[in-house]
Amino acid sequence: MPRVSQDHLDARRRQILDGARACFARHGYEGATVRRLEEATHLSRGAIFHHFRDKESLFLALAEDDAARMADVVAEQGLVQVMRDLLSGRSQHPADWLGTRLEVSRRLRTDPEFRARWAERSEQLTTATRKRLAWQRQAGNLRDDISIEVLAAYLELVLEGLVSHLAMGLPADDLEPVLDLVEESVRRHRGLAAG
Amino acid sequence: MPRVSQDHLDARRRQILDGARACFARHGYEGATVRRLEEATHLSRGAIFHHFRDKESLFLALAEDDAARMADVVAEQGLVQVMRDLLSGRSQHPADWLGTRLEVSRRLRTDPEFRARWAERSEQLTTATRKRLAWQRQAGNLRDDISIEVLAAYLELVLEGLVSHLAMGLPADDLEPVLDLVEESVRRHRGLAAG
Repeated sequence: MPRVSQDHLDARRRQILDGARACFARHGYEGATVRRLEEATHLSRGAIFHHFRDKESLFLALAEDDAARMADVVAEQGLVQVMRDLLSGRSQHPADWLGTRLEVSRRLRTDPEFRARWAERSEQLTTATRKRLAWQRQAGNLRDDISIEVLAAYLELVLEGLVSHLAMGLPADDLEPVLDLVEESVRRHRGLAAG
Repeated sequence: MPRVSQDHLDARRRQILDGARACFARHGYEGATVRRLEEATHLSRGAIFHHFRDKESLFLALAEDDAARMADVVAEQGLVQVMRDLLSGRSQHPADWLGTRLEVSRRLRTDPEFRARWAERSEQLTTATRKRLAWQRQAGNLRDDISIEVLAAYLELVLEGLVSHLAMGLPADDLEPVLDLVEESVRRHRGLAAG
């Protein structure tokens, strides 16, 4: 396959994912009809389903794509930074990203088949978080009396709470110092910080 | 009104709330039809709606009742204990309680009118948490470099994450040490703990 064609395919795929992300965030999974997906992507259903087998596969690709972007931020700046971006609306697609994540949460609750398909794909963020923490520990920034696994599970639990909090439309202007506390609680012991 | 009659009314109200709790948890808000509420409470719709104006009022009373019970546990044992109970299934109605809480979360997300009605009632838990923390601070158990408000918001955020985590059916067997970390992070500075 000539190189230009592959670039074209990649660009088309990206176009579909970006349009679909906004569409799912706005209408939810069930509400994102094929007609609405056509409108949101500016492409025909034929073109869309040339790239993705069905709506379920498109949604999974999208969730996977978001998880990969999040994993990139985690690798460079840590999971607490992902939360800070979420809070300040500084993340690239804050509302859409939240929408996808919520839709994943909802379907995990209600759809066992989806749960099985998602399980294979959701390891990415955990892996990125653990790698980042291992690196931080080596650099001497991390407390060393608690395992990487427990620290990662802790950060993911707080992230889940933050997503839920924002999704419920609860006030978030008082959460910046809460994230400071979260960040500090995974760092090297306070008593030794200056040492 | 003679005393016996008031006792009777209270018992009947309790019977309705307990049946309805299980019914909402099992079928969700929309799925809890009047017929199902009749079956679950062993009472007629006439009897049920003698005590509660409509299904919405019944659900709000239920959510308020659960919040009051949680607030009691918080007052005596703290919010981290509520989370531990939730994790171990030791709480009085763990699955039902989780169901109500999730239904509240879902409706907060999707129903602005409900959000307004709920706002008045949801202060209870926050108030109980803050009182408990203030008491712990006086007893010298709490770190004193962070305000009660921030510590309470932190604990509530973790609780929200835990509810979401359990609701998604994610594995919870590794969360006990995470809650240890949460508890420790609101306590007196580690370096001074022995002092």
